[in-house]
Amino acid sequence: MSLASLPLQTGMDAIVTGVNLVWVLTVTFLIFFMHAGFAMLEAGQVRSKNVANQLTKNLLTWSVGVIVFFLVGAAVSTIVGGLTGGGGVSITEAFMAIYAPDAASVTAWTDWLFGAVFAMTAATIVSGAVAGRAKLRAYISYTILLAAVIYPVVVGFTWAGGFLGAMGFHDFAGGMIVHGMGGLAGLTAAWIIGPRMDRFNADGSVNVIPGHSLSFAVLGTLILAFGWYGFNVGTAAAPLALNDAGEVTLGSFAYVGRVALVTTLGMAAGAIGAAAVAMQKTGKVDTLYVANGLLAGLVGITSIADAIVWPGAIVVGLLAGAQLPIVFGFIEKRLHIDDVCAVFPVHGSAGILGALMFPFFATSFWNGSASFVSLAIPQVVGVAVIALWTFGATYVVFRGIQATGELRVSAEHEREGLDTSEHGVDTYPEFGKPEPVTDGSGVPVDGTVRTDGGKDE
Amino acid sequence: MSLASLPLQTGMDAIVTGVNLVWVLTVTFLIFFMHAGFAMLEAGQVRSKNVANQLTKNLLTWSVGVIVFFLVGAAVSTIVGGLTGGGGVSITEAFMAIYAPDAASVTAWTDWLFGAVFAMTAATIVSGAVAGRAKLRAYISYTILLAAVIYPVVVGFTWAGGFLGAMGFHDFAGGMIVHGMGGLAGLTAAWIIGPRMDRFNADGSVNVIPGHSLSFAVLGTLILAFGWYGFNVGTAAAPLALNDAGEVTLGSFAYVGRVALVTTLGMAAGAIGAAAVAMQKTGKVDTLYVANGLLAGLVGITSIADAIVWPGAIVVGLLAGAQLPIVFGFIEKRLHIDDVCAVFPVHGSAGILGALMFPFFATSFWNGSASFVSLAIPQVVGVAVIALWTFGATYVVFRGIQATGELRVSAEHEREGLDTSEHGVDTYPEFGKPEPVTDGSGVPVDGTVRTDGGKDE
Amino acid sequence: MSLASLPLQTGMDAIVTGVNLVWVLTVTFLIFFMHAGFAMLEAGQVRSKNVANQLTKNLLTWSVGVIVFFLVGAAVSTIVGGLTGGGGVSITEAFMAIYAPDAASVTAWTDWLFGAVFAMTAATIVSGAVAGRAKLRAYISYTILLAAVIYPVVVGFTWAGGFLGAMGFHDFAGGMIVHGMGGLAGLTAAWIIGPRMDRFNADGSVNVIPGHSLSFAVLGTLILAFGWYGFNVGTAAAPLALNDAGEVTLGSFAYVGRVALVTTLGMAAGAIGAAAVAMQKTGKVDTLYVANGLLAGLVGITSIADAIVWPGAIVVGLLAGAQLPIVFGFIEKRLHIDDVCAVFPVHGSAGILGALMFPFFATSFWNGSASFVSLAIPQVVGVAVIALWTFGATYVVFRGIQATGELRVSAEHEREGLDTSEHGVDTYPEFGKPEPVTDGSGVPVDGTVRTDGGKDE
Repeated sequence: MSLASLPLQTGMDAIVTGVNLVWVLTVTFLIFFMHAGFAMLEAGQVRSKNVANQLTKNLLTWSVGVIVFFLVGAAVSTIVGGLTGGGGVSITEAFMAIYAPDAASVTAWTDWLFGAVFAMTAATIVSGAVAGRAKLRAYISYTILLAAVIYPVVVGFTWAGGFLGAMGFHDFAGGMIVHGMGGLAGLTAAWIIGPRMDRFNADGSVNVIPGHSLSFAVLGTLILAFGWYGFNVGTAAAPLALNDAGEVTLGSFAYVGRVALVTTLGMAAGAIGAAAVAMQKTGKVDTLYVANGLLAGLVGITSIADAIVWPGAIVVGLLAGAQLPIVFGFIEKRLHIDDVCAVFPVHGSAGILGALMFPFFATSFWNGSASFVSLAIPQVVGVAVIALWTFGATYVVFRGIQATGELRVSAEHEREGLDTSEHGVDTYPEFGKPEPVTDGSGVPVDGTVRTDGGKDE
Repeated sequence: MSLASLPLQTGMDAIVTGVNLVWVLTVTFLIFFMHAGFAMLEAGQVRSKNVANQLTKNLLTWSVGVIVFFLVGAAVSTIVGGLTGGGGVSITEAFMAIYAPDAASVTAWTDWLFGAVFAMTAATIVSGAVAGRAKLRAYISYTILLAAVIYPVVVGFTWAGGFLGAMGFHDFAGGMIVHGMGGLAGLTAAWIIGPRMDRFNADGSVNVIPGHSLSFAVLGTLILAFGWYGFNVGTAAAPLALNDAGEVTLGSFAYVGRVALVTTLGMAAGAIGAAAVAMQKTGKVDTLYVANGLLAGLVGITSIADAIVWPGAIVVGLLAGAQLPIVFGFIEKRLHIDDVCAVFPVHGSAGILGALMFPFFATSFWNGSASFVSLAIPQVVGVAVIALWTFGATYVVFRGIQATGELRVSAEHEREGLDTSEHGVDTYPEFGKPEPVTDGSGVPVDGTVRTDGGKDE
Repeated sequence: MSLASLPLQTGMDAIVTGVNLVWVLTVTFLIFFMHAGFAMLEAGQVRSKNVANQLTKNLLTWSVGVIVFFLVGAAVSTIVGGLTGGGGVSITEAFMAIYAPDAASVTAWTDWLFGAVFAMTAATIVSGAVAGRAKLRAYISYTILLAAVIYPVVVGFTWAGGFLGAMGFHDFAGGMIVHGMGGLAGLTAAWIIGPRMDRFNADGSVNVIPGHSLSFAVLGTLILAFGWYGFNVGTAAAPLALNDAGEVTLGSFAYVGRVALVTTLGMAAGAIGAAAVAMQKTGKVDTLYVANGLLAGLVGITSIADAIVWPGAIVVGLLAGAQLPIVFGFIEKRLHIDDVCAVFPVHGSAGILGALMFPFFATSFWNGSASFVSLAIPQVVGVAVIALWTFGATYVVFRGIQATGELRVSAEHEREGLDTSEHGVDTYPEFGKPEPVTDGSGVPVDGTVRTDGGKDE
C-alpha cells in the first residue's frame, strides 16, 4: 500500500483505535520483555558450563520462532479454528490475512504481534526442561514445529474458534493454552531425553545439581512478573470500543482493575504458599521455591483472572504455590524425570490447576444461570485435549529426533558442558568453576552436585 | 457483580476513564518493576554468602506486604486520614471501599494498586539497612507491621487527608512519605540490630565489607531509575479530566513535561554531585557513590517535582548527591551504625532534604501569594512528625522483637552466611568465595573485608 | 509560570494531547531503559578488572550528557538546522525554546526528553569501543562534546531541517543518525587510542580477550531489544492528530503495526544471519554473535522501518546480521583496531547498510513516482556527510586529548585494571580472577586471553 492508501479514520473511530493501539503495543512490549526474564531464570538454574547454551536457546527461540509463527503458525491457528469449529475456512485467506491484511485494518499486525509474544512464551518454556543435554539443532527443530503447528493447533482449538472454544472452554490469558501447554511439552521432552548424568543414582536416590546463580534466577522471576502484568492485564480487552449507537464505551475494560488486583494477589499468595510448604518440609525458606512459587501463582491465576474475585485469587495462588514443591518432588523422586528448571510444576500443573478452578470460583458471578457441571465439563475436556495433543505431538517429534541420534549431546560433551561443545565459548572465563568429582559410584562428592538428604520428602 | 452490572460509561466519560486507566496501569507496572531494581541493588551490595537471603527478603516483602496492605493497610490510611484530619470516618466503610468498591467505580482497584506499589517501595528499603544479620522471621514481622500500620499512618497523616495534609504539607510523589520514611526506618533498624561482625573495631576504626557484585548494584540502579519515571511522572495526575462544563481537559497533566524534565535533571545532577565529592575526597570516582548519588538525586526531587523549575532541579540534585558521601561517612564513622546499603543517605536524608527545599524553590511560581514561612512551617512540621513516628514505631517493634531473642541470627550463622542458615542454599555454588581471615585482633586481613584507610574522611 | 497560567486545552485538543503524551512518555521511558541494556552488554564484554569502569562510564554518560544536551545540545541542533537548511535562525530563540518554552506548549519538554534519550543512545555507544584503556576524564570530555556539538550537528543536518533533510535524506528512527554516528565515532576512537595490551602480537596475529560474563551481555541485549520497541515503534508519530477540519485522525500512526512487525522480523533475522555465518565459519553457534546479530538487525531496520514491507525486513535483517562477523573480522584482522564491544559492526556498518537499503526497498510503495536514483542520491550523500563529520570531529577531539597525554591510562594501570586505578574498587572481591600470564613474548599463556586459531577467517 502506498501512503495514499493510508486508512483515514477520523472522529471517535480514530480515538478508539489510537488509544487501543497505545495500550496493546505497551503490553506487547512488556510481554516481549518476558524473554529476558526466561533467559535469566533459566540461566541461573543451570551449571555455569551450560549458561551460554541456555542463553543462546532463548535468543534463537525468539528469533527463529517469531519468523516461523509469522510465516506459518498464525495462519495455522485460523485454519484449525475454522476446521474444528464448524466455521468456513479458506487456507489462502488465512495466510493472506497475515501476509497482506486489508489496508483498512490498522490493527492486523499489532494483533498478530500480541499473539506472537504469547506463542513465543509457550515456546521458550521448553528449553528450561531439557537444559544441559539437548543438542541445539534438536531443540531448534522442535521450536520450529512448536511455532508452526503444535502451539497454533491449541490456539485453533480454543481462542481461534475451534471446538473447545465452541463448547465453552475458558482460558482468559493462556494459563492453560500458553503455560500449561509449555509445561506439558517440557515435561514430555525431559522424560524422553532422559536425566542429566549424575542426576539419579542406580539405587534410585537423587542428587541435586544446583544452578550457578540464584541472583539471575530471582532477577528473571521479577522481570517475568513485570511482563506478566502485560500478559494478564493487557488481555483485559481493548480500553475503548464503540457501541451500536456509535458511542465510545469502556467495554470489558471496566473490569481491568479487578484483573490487576487478582493478578497481584495470586502471585503474592503463590510465593507464600511455596515458602510455607518448603518451610514445613525443611525448616528453611528455599529461595528458588519462593521465586518459582510466585511464578506458579501467576500461572494459576492467568486463565481465570477475569472470572474470579479477590478471596478466590488468594486461595488459587496459595494452592498453585503449595503444589510446586510437592509436584516437583513427585516428578523427581517418583518419576525420575529431570525437569531442570521445574517448568512442569511452575507452568504445567499450575496451569492445569487454574483451568480446573474455573467452575469453583466463577459460578457465583460469572454466569449466574450456568450450573457448576456445565462450566466444569468444558474445562476438563479442554485440559485433557490440550494435554493429550501436546504430549502426543511432543512425543512424536522428540522420539523422531531421537531416532536420528541427534537429540542428545555425547556424554563427553555433556560433562565438559554445552557451552564448549555447542558454542565454543566460556561464559565466565575468569571465575573458578570446580568440576564435580565422583567417588567411582557415579555419585559426585564435591559441593556442586549434592546428594539430596530427603529434602523434599 | 455479574457481567450484567458492568458499568457502562459512554462518550467523553469513557474516553477519560479509558485513557487514564492506560496511563495509571502503565506507570504502576513500572513502579512494581522497581522491586527488581531493589533486589539487584541490595544483592550487589552484600557478601555472596548473604545474597539469597537478600533476594528472598525482597520477594517476600512484596508478596507478604502487598496482601497485608490490601487486607489492612489501605483502610488504615483512610481511617487515620479521617481521624486526624477532622473528616468523618467509618471503619466499616474504609474497609469496604477496598474489599468491595461500588460496582460503578472502575478505578477503585487500579487506584489501590497504584498506592500499593508506593507502599511496597517504602517497605523494601528497610531490608538493605539490616542486611547480613536480621533473621528472616523478624524482618517479615516488621514488614507486616509496616504494611499494615506504620506506612499507612504516614499516608493517613498526609495524602489521605490527615492533619499534615490539612496544614499544607507538600510531598508530590513521596520523597518524604515513601523514601524518607523508608530510609528513617532502615536507619533505626540498623542501629538497634547493631553492626555486622568485623564492621567496626574495638578502637573505633572502620572496616569496609565490600558487596559481592557492583554489576548487580548498577543494574539495580538503572532499573530503579526506569521505574522512577513511573513513580514521579506517573504521579503527575491523570492525563484527562472533565471540567464543570462536561468538557475534556488536560488538567494538571499539562505540567507533565516539567515533571519529566526535573526528574531527569535531578537524577543526573545527583550522580554528578556524589561523583564530585567522592573525587574530591579520594581522587577517584567510586562507582557505588555515582550509582547511589543518582538515586539520591531522584529521591531529592521526588517530593517537589511538581513545584520546581529546571535550575532548581539541578541544584537540588547536586545537593542530594553531594550529601550522600558526607552523611554516609557520618553514620559510619561517628555513629558507628552499619547501614549496609546506604539506605539512609540515599532515601532518608535525601528525602528530608527535598521536602525542606520546597519553600526555597516553590515560592516564586507555585503560589505567588504564599510567604516563605507559610510554606516552610508545614514542611518542617511534616518532616519532624514523619521522622518521629517512623523512628518511634520502628524502635518499639525492633526492640520488641529483640526482647524475644529472635531479631538477630547467631554469630555462627552470621559467619557462615544467612544463605546457609536461613535458606539452606548456596547462591553461587561454583564460584570461589574466600572467607575473611582475621589476624586475631578481630580485623580481617584478607581482601574481602578491608580496613578503611580514612577514605571518607 | 504559575498554576494560573496552566494551558487549558479542552475538548478534542485535550484528548489528542493527552493520548499523545501518554504514548511519548511511555516510549521515552523504554528508550531510557536502553542505558541499562548498554551497561550490561558492555560490562559483560570486558574483563572483570574493568567492569566498574564500564558501569561508571555508562552512568556518567547519561548523567553528564543529558544535562549538557539540555543546556547546549538541543539548541545547537536547531541552530545548525536553520543555518544549513536555509531557514531563518535566532540563537536566542533556539535556546529559549528549550529553557523557557511558551507556557501554552505542554509538549515542549516531553519532546525534548524524547530527543534526549536518542542523543544519549548515540553517546553511550562509544564507551564500548574504547573499553579497558581510556581514562575516565578523557572519555567524559568527549561525551560532553558529543552531547553539546557532535551529535547535535548531525541532527541539525537532518531531522532539524538542515541541508540533508532538505535534499531528502531519509532516516526514520536514527539507524544512521544515532547508531551509525555512534558506531563510527567508536571506531575512530578505538583506532586513535590503540588496542588493549596483548590484543595483537608483533607478528600480526590476534589474541581474543573474552569478556567476563556472557550472562550480562545477553541480558543487556534483551533489555536493548525491549527498549528498541520504544525507539522504533515510538517514533511512528503521535497516535492522534487533528486534521484541517478539526477532526481527530490517526495520522501516520495507522502504520504503527507495520513498524512493529518489521522491527520484530528485522531483529529476528539479524540473529539468524549472524548465527548462520558463525556456524559456517566455525561449526559452532557463538552466543555473542547471535546477541550482537540481533542488535545489528535492529540497527539495520531502524532507519527504514517506516518504508519497508515485511519480506524486505527479513532480507535487511539477514544482511545486517551476516555482515557482523565479517566486518568484525576485517576490523580485527586487517585493520588491527580493537573495537572491544564490536560497536562498529553492530551500530556503524549495520546503520550504514540500512540507510543505503532505503532506495532498494522503498521505491515500490513509499513514493511511487520517485526514481531509484532520486531516492539513492540523498542516502549516499547523507551517509557520506555524517560519516565524514563524525570521523573528523572525533578525530580532532581524540587527537587533541591524546596530545595532552590524558587519553590513555598507563600500562601499569591497564594491567591491574581500571577499576582499581580509576575507581578504587573491586567489582567482584569474592570471585577468583586469574591474571593473564605471558610467556615472555607478549603472548598470554593462560586461559583468559586466547590466541585466536583463525576462528574468523
